[in-house]
Amino acid sequence: LAEQAGGITVSTLKEAEYYFEHGIIDITYAVGIVPVKMERIISLIKKGAKITLIADSVEQVQFVSAYASENKVEIPVSIEIDSDGHRSGVQPGVPLLMEIATLLHKSPGVSINGVLTHAGASYQAKSIEDIRRAAKNEQKAAVSCAELIKKHRLPCPVVSIGSTPTAVFADDLAGVTELRAGVYMFMDLVMAGLQVCDVSDIAISVLTSVIGHQKEKGWIITDGGWMALSRDRGTASQVTDYGYGLVCHKDGTPLNGMILSATNQEHGIISSNTDQKIDFSSFPIGTMLRVLPNHACATAAMHDRYHVIKNSDEIIHEWIRINGW
Amino acid sequence: LAEQAGGITVSTLKEAEYYFEHGIIDITYAVGIVPVKMERIISLIKKGAKITLIADSVEQVQFVSAYASENKVEIPVSIEIDSDGHRSGVQPGVPLLMEIATLLHKSPGVSINGVLTHAGASYQAKSIEDIRRAAKNEQKAAVSCAELIKKHRLPCPVVSIGSTPTAVFADDLAGVTELRAGVYMFMDLVMAGLQVCDVSDIAISVLTSVIGHQKEKGWIITDGGWMALSRDRGTASQVTDYGYGLVCHKDGTPLNGMILSATNQEHGIISSNTDQKIDFSSFPIGTMLRVLPNHACATAAMHDRYHVIKNSDEIIHEWIRINGW
Repeated sequence: LAEQAGGITVSTLKEAEYYFEHGIIDITYAVGIVPVKMERIISLIKKGAKITLIADSVEQVQFVSAYASENKVEIPVSIEIDSDGHRSGVQPGVPLLMEIATLLHKSPGVSINGVLTHAGASYQAKSIEDIRRAAKNEQKAAVSCAELIKKHRLPCPVVSIGSTPTAVFADDLAGVTELRAGVYMFMDLVMAGLQVCDVSDIAISVLTSVIGHQKEKGWIITDGGWMALSRDRGTASQVTDYGYGLVCHKDGTPLNGMILSATNQEHGIISSNTDQKIDFSSFPIGTMLRVLPNHACATAAMHDRYHVIKNSDEIIHEWIRINGW
Repeated sequence: LAEQAGGITVSTLKEAEYYFEHGIIDITYAVGIVPVKMERIISLIKKGAKITLIADSVEQVQFVSAYASENKVEIPVSIEIDSDGHRSGVQPGVPLLMEIATLLHKSPGVSINGVLTHAGASYQAKSIEDIRRAAKNEQKAAVSCAELIKKHRLPCPVVSIGSTPTAVFADDLAGVTELRAGVYMFMDLVMAGLQVCDVSDIAISVLTSVIGHQKEKGWIITDGGWMALSRDRGTASQVTDYGYGLVCHKDGTPLNGMILSATNQEHGIISSNTDQKIDFSSFPIGTMLRVLPNHACATAAMHDRYHVIKNSDEIIHEWIRINGW
């Protein structure tokens, strides 16, 4: 980002505003646009930001064009492609794609930035082969739509894909110009379960204290519940279900067999997921433990900052988070 | 709270610090105490707060007494009772109860405040009768422990219970001196599923915008995903599973049959949970909808403030939240 080679993707306008205030110009807001958000977008553009929006309907192009023209600004718009049916976007091959592209090209204040997709279904892959197929499908969906637009003699400079599993396992990125991946930065247990990373690659954890023992039940009680970990149960459908997280020593060494099996608001329950019983004498009240989360995004969202640490407890940086909208 | 009749219960020290700064003196911190938190607690007490802690082990009494004596302060401690086996606390009837009580009574810097329990298992009740039984059990567990302590000629002034379902359906509160209930304030779909409230009693919702249609699938896509609603799936095990929430018109009228069936980080997917198909023409892009959440606590925690509204969109107050620890 030092020379702003590729810009950033954000999922909220609050992120866009924060990063623009801190010097980043080229920002894609990758959630379908609605009229109520246009005022803040126009304001950012007037201050010098290059904001790219996404659309998967004619209506969106119409009101973005109207706002842009009225405010005498230019807004590049990427057409959102639904490469795997998991949420929004235009299906490749339907007439709507060229309807939107044509309208974008001829309407004042807007232009075709390109096509954009997210292979979110890759999170449900059952094997690396599944992920490779999802990556191929993602590339093919995006590139084929871009080619169709170009065949109609319209511009389509950006072909943007992105999901962490497909980013790691894509064999063929021919025709792709941009990749957006999020969990990629920290990784998490869901990604380890998908074989996208190793547990030792996970660079995010929640520090928690032992507050009690329920010995007959084999439980250690901690002060880290779902307020600290989030309610995400992403590993529930994977081969290894870690409950709400894998427990580690304070220095990050996994205590294999010990998981955060249940959570209340501010309480965590650690139990064994193997035949091995927990040795309570090793975890007296006050012992600090780390928990590796199922889903880095969901867990991080429960906090207002990251502590960047060295040697298990030396805090060398604090990174604030931009939560909210 | 105007005359501080009963004080408050908090689940984080950040809440304790915030409310003390805003004039509330009598504060129970109802999560098992650990040494690393004692410095902040001592600091609050020295400034004039009356902080009550809870303990379910001898070790906790020992270190709280040591910190209190060293700092020349007095700390009342309630003994946490495990009335239904769902997380922490001393089981009624085991010798540990009197061990802790005796130690609290004779140790410097600490005193027996009373007993405290939370009938969290009432959230899994299958009928109102189940909740009544849970309430009876909660009262009985707390009162019997208090009576045992008093039988040993030790003081036990406070008998504290609390969970929203049992607070609503308790028939007999004889011997109980304090009730702590949280969801009670807003109610939510889980409480409606338990027949603790009616859907029309729910006083909290997330406002969201329609950002797209996936007509072949019967989906409306919104900009409110699990970042706005939380990952809580509390109604999943109830008779009516609302997914991530029940969809309403902007004025709060439920659109019965329309639920937030799935969420991504910043995307919600609304679909029908009845035979009735969604009429997309009634929900053009930009339409604002409210979503009633499964769990008020979890959803509120995703936000930094409440907008108190009148007539569907007039904001008459902003209440900030105290997130974090």
